[in-house]
Amino acid sequence: MSTQINRSWQMSGFGLSRLSQVTGKMPQPGPHELLVRTKAVSLNYKDRLIVDGTLIPELTFPFVPTSDAVGEIVAVGSAVSRFQVGQRVLGQVIADWPDGDAPPVLHKHTLGSSLPGMLSDYVVFGEDAAVLAPPLLSDIEAASLPIAALTAWFAMAEATKPVAGQTILIQGTGGVSLFALQFARAFGLRAIVTSSSDEKLERAKKLGAWQVINYRTRPAWDEAALELTDGLGVNHILEMVGGDNARRSLSALAASGRLSIIGLLGAMELNFPIVPFMRNRIVVQGLSIGHRRSFERMNQAIEALGIKPVIDKVFGFDEVPQALQHLEKGPFGKIVISTT
Amino acid sequence: MSTQINRSWQMSGFGLSRLSQVTGKMPQPGPHELLVRTKAVSLNYKDRLIVDGTLIPELTFPFVPTSDAVGEIVAVGSAVSRFQVGQRVLGQVIADWPDGDAPPVLHKHTLGSSLPGMLSDYVVFGEDAAVLAPPLLSDIEAASLPIAALTAWFAMAEATKPVAGQTILIQGTGGVSLFALQFARAFGLRAIVTSSSDEKLERAKKLGAWQVINYRTRPAWDEAALELTDGLGVNHILEMVGGDNARRSLSALAASGRLSIIGLLGAMELNFPIVPFMRNRIVVQGLSIGHRRSFERMNQAIEALGIKPVIDKVFGFDEVPQALQHLEKGPFGKIVISTT
Amino acid sequence: MSTQINRSWQMSGFGLSRLSQVTGKMPQPGPHELLVRTKAVSLNYKDRLIVDGTLIPELTFPFVPTSDAVGEIVAVGSAVSRFQVGQRVLGQVIADWPDGDAPPVLHKHTLGSSLPGMLSDYVVFGEDAAVLAPPLLSDIEAASLPIAALTAWFAMAEATKPVAGQTILIQGTGGVSLFALQFARAFGLRAIVTSSSDEKLERAKKLGAWQVINYRTRPAWDEAALELTDGLGVNHILEMVGGDNARRSLSALAASGRLSIIGLLGAMELNFPIVPFMRNRIVVQGLSIGHRRSFERMNQAIEALGIKPVIDKVFGFDEVPQALQHLEKGPFGKIVISTT
Amino acid sequence: MSTQINRSWQMSGFGLSRLSQVTGKMPQPGPHELLVRTKAVSLNYKDRLIVDGTLIPELTFPFVPTSDAVGEIVAVGSAVSRFQVGQRVLGQVIADWPDGDAPPVLHKHTLGSSLPGMLSDYVVFGEDAAVLAPPLLSDIEAASLPIAALTAWFAMAEATKPVAGQTILIQGTGGVSLFALQFARAFGLRAIVTSSSDEKLERAKKLGAWQVINYRTRPAWDEAALELTDGLGVNHILEMVGGDNARRSLSALAASGRLSIIGLLGAMELNFPIVPFMRNRIVVQGLSIGHRRSFERMNQAIEALGIKPVIDKVFGFDEVPQALQHLEKGPFGKIVISTT
Repeated sequence: MSTQINRSWQMSGFGLSRLSQVTGKMPQPGPHELLVRTKAVSLNYKDRLIVDGTLIPELTFPFVPTSDAVGEIVAVGSAVSRFQVGQRVLGQVIADWPDGDAPPVLHKHTLGSSLPGMLSDYVVFGEDAAVLAPPLLSDIEAASLPIAALTAWFAMAEATKPVAGQTILIQGTGGVSLFALQFARAFGLRAIVTSSSDEKLERAKKLGAWQVINYRTRPAWDEAALELTDGLGVNHILEMVGGDNARRSLSALAASGRLSIIGLLGAMELNFPIVPFMRNRIVVQGLSIGHRRSFERMNQAIEALGIKPVIDKVFGFDEVPQALQHLEKGPFGKIVISTT
Repeated sequence: MSTQINRSWQMSGFGLSRLSQVTGKMPQPGPHELLVRTKAVSLNYKDRLIVDGTLIPELTFPFVPTSDAVGEIVAVGSAVSRFQVGQRVLGQVIADWPDGDAPPVLHKHTLGSSLPGMLSDYVVFGEDAAVLAPPLLSDIEAASLPIAALTAWFAMAEATKPVAGQTILIQGTGGVSLFALQFARAFGLRAIVTSSSDEKLERAKKLGAWQVINYRTRPAWDEAALELTDGLGVNHILEMVGGDNARRSLSALAASGRLSIIGLLGAMELNFPIVPFMRNRIVVQGLSIGHRRSFERMNQAIEALGIKPVIDKVFGFDEVPQALQHLEKGPFGKIVISTT
Repeated sequence: MSTQINRSWQMSGFGLSRLSQVTGKMPQPGPHELLVRTKAVSLNYKDRLIVDGTLIPELTFPFVPTSDAVGEIVAVGSAVSRFQVGQRVLGQVIADWPDGDAPPVLHKHTLGSSLPGMLSDYVVFGEDAAVLAPPLLSDIEAASLPIAALTAWFAMAEATKPVAGQTILIQGTGGVSLFALQFARAFGLRAIVTSSSDEKLERAKKLGAWQVINYRTRPAWDEAALELTDGLGVNHILEMVGGDNARRSLSALAASGRLSIIGLLGAMELNFPIVPFMRNRIVVQGLSIGHRRSFERMNQAIEALGIKPVIDKVFGFDEVPQALQHLEKGPFGKIVISTT
Repeated sequence: MSTQINRSWQMSGFGLSRLSQVTGKMPQPGPHELLVRTKAVSLNYKDRLIVDGTLIPELTFPFVPTSDAVGEIVAVGSAVSRFQVGQRVLGQVIADWPDGDAPPVLHKHTLGSSLPGMLSDYVVFGEDAAVLAPPLLSDIEAASLPIAALTAWFAMAEATKPVAGQTILIQGTGGVSLFALQFARAFGLRAIVTSSSDEKLERAKKLGAWQVINYRTRPAWDEAALELTDGLGVNHILEMVGGDNARRSLSALAASGRLSIIGLLGAMELNFPIVPFMRNRIVVQGLSIGHRRSFERMNQAIEALGIKPVIDKVFGFDEVPQALQHLEKGPFGKIVISTT
């Protein structure tokens, strides 16, 4: 431990103006905990909603936001058996979800929500809530995994079974979507990517998209998806928006199709017409990240497949407000803060 | 074949007034078909919607409605190998769904919809679209199975896994709901039944309901369901209504809860708030009856468990209009036409 | 804590003669641990194999054997959040298996194996490795659950899906087998029980067995099972013996049948002919107890279903050697030590 | 139909010497059948066992062997609705298995076994027992799919869920094994291939094998597999041999590992030690090809992934005996007869 000083970005209230850098004491790990010197922290859109006060109105202050970090273990509690000093780890965001079913009440132990966030020099993980970072990834790349990659992986490889040759429609080109695109390719799925930008769609094609749809020039993107699939519809759609967009998703789905609800970028409601829902035997599933075992399986796959996360932009530790503002710009991939 | 005359109830247009009894020629079975003398036909609520012109506006006339029949095989086609004359069979309503995934386009071969219905002395089944009737059931009882029982069975035993000790909420006391209640009891599930009638709830208790809720005296039945489950929520809900009722269903569900959409007695829309949907990792699934293999498994279970279908009222072949009107009265169990 | 004295039955070497009662200090719970005053401890056949030195030859002494205990929490560690003093709990035998997949290396943290056993006044459980005992059960009954009931439950309700109306064959009438019989009944399965004793088979019938086979008078019990199932075979068999018995199990299985390997009372080998294995698409699965989440689900089911464990005989704390000898007699149900 | 003459290779008894080319009448399709002019027929090792009399001793003669054919529809029965003349189709080998569970009694309707085989100019398929051939494949390539590819696909994509990043061990480099290797790569799995030939292993590497083991120079190939997986073991093994080889497979498996029994090139027995079987919670599953729906899904995947079957050697219609003898030589990929 080179220093006893622990810098953090702390919210004293809602709004970017009330987020400021402070200096505090280094946390002490309990018997089953790891003290970790962070190397990089990635942002998710929900971090902006939390800073703005939209997502968790009942937050108590001061509060350090963000959930995704990679770092090096600098000390371990007396009872720790799963890890040792010097290892590079990622935090498991839903800390009390090791495997199988989620805890009955979610988010009682979630990083950057009910537990402190990651924008600090030093953070603490329970030894049961950490995983080794994939060796082939840089710190910047590894920091992008805990929410974005695991959400895509869980929807595509855990909550359902990927069947090679089938189609998946991925909305947008943010962090979750590009991981989904890379996994789709690795699983032998045909990925259709939607975006409002031809330039982003071009980049998605280079990452392996089978087909693309510009929903600005083709607002009835569900019809476009049906055309691309010979009228049969898409087998799986990752819903990032909600509201009327989810209605289009339903109409673009094949018989026995699946809609995974993983984002809430748009409306706060889901609406579906009931007759096609029954006739096509649609499955709609709400998802929230994933468990630690799936995180471990995903990291193994990322190593085996040589997947490299797509990073939109890297900011320094002093540039956190700029990074949070950049989230609004519709990045292509992940935004990461280097914390060293 | 004792007679060449074949009575049928035929629609010449929409509305009860255009449904009339006619006499025609007996159908001839093709090489892979069974000629069946019907013994009893049961009604489903969708039959009323079809007669009224609400459900299938594009129907062509003349058309014989209804889908559920039991009867005796009186002749078999030259290539038939699965059945023989004298056996008592039930028709598989979605005739081209033997097992596994449904056909990509549903209802191309569905009894009482794209195929002729059952209100005739003689009907024809493909040999791959029939199952033996459970020996312990009377004709009246057996006729109640093809849609109502199979819908409940498929939602509870095929599309998901019943876990003894868990809770299931069943809406209403119609045909599907009472089969669901009997299956729930047989699978070791705790069933909560809702109804607007205390008298029906009393009868549901006698059939094995663990708890009941009168949604007339307790319109916020979701809150009642949460109270009955110590605030944890219900594991599985069979949605019979849609619209705002489905919203209450979502709020009554436990974490990782499942909502099976099997009825459309109310609104034509499903609406859900997206945040609890994701947080609780809800699964909503649309269902439409089930496949032949599940029908066979269900019949085996009905025999093994000694389940007796609940029959609300039996009508004669000449009383079909009265029987269809009786559907409106909210029967407790099934309405059956004796066709002999 | 009424006393600081902690009695234990301790092995100083292999063999019943080297098992003796000793007095030691009461253990102290760590921050995430529970100190529990045991009330009752149940025996499993493997306890006898461990005392005799057959199952774990590499055991180090002194060692307190047995794995199943119920008791009352008398103190909790400083960081415990899931439990409080006064609650009645059962230990989760595979302590590091909370849910989902088992740990990669099993039995690194197993009660009565790599961790100390239960034959003491006071024992310690990790708070993540304990569950509430079902309130309706007595201490004697509750103590019978951790291995025997959970093994049966896991094989029948977690590793596969119970389909009501299907058949299951249960070998013998020991602890696991009688729980299996009770669960079979609760799930709507048709249970066939085998035994060498007509008297035990009679009692099995009273507990709900659909059919019974005396394998002494009918050594070709597989043929008997085929006859009972109209030549189709049994859907699921719980294998308790191995060796040639497992061969008979294979021959008694239906197409797509499942053989769950849960006991090793006989040979140390499994042998199958490969052609019927492939032709019938048999699934054979090895099992070892189950995870904590399944323990919780099972307890919920035991409560909901009103299942009462079958207890063969209860011994006092001073009678442990006699109880272990009684295991050899082929008990009907569980053997329990009252530790108070 | 350009000709009424139908050449066939017919067995008049067991042994290659009793297989001869004969000329007969063209078969006539029934109402639900397709008449198909074959283009290519592929061989499987079991064809040799059938010709030799080892596999089906009760065969009746004359008998046309082999099961895998591609051809063009030249006539359809009067009731056919799924296909039309001119389409290129493959026969579904287990003709009465459309989807879901297999028929209770297997091989009552299997091509080249209970039904006539494919070594004819003209053959007949039921319309429910045929699938469209993948357009991108040549006739020679397409003919290799019905048994070899579908067996590998069913074991890897239907009977279980492929998890990208996990390991699979594939025994040998015959037809099934090379399809398994190509699917493994497409699903993101790490494939270990075993063979007795370094030259074949070199070719397997070029096809995407992650690691290879020469079991001639390393007879304890299970130990080699454990080394390659850091001692954790392999997640899934495709067993092609049986006997002692299956014992090594068990020892090479990871915790919760799966052994798919798909070949019987060696012994007629499977033998496993019971303790590791239980401790590691191993699943062993017997498999026999797959159902029609999986065939359709596989063909879709083959198209989407651009998979090209590996053909060892092509023979002319007059060279069937030579082709059957070539089977003994341990081909690298499939042996195909061009029938035009």
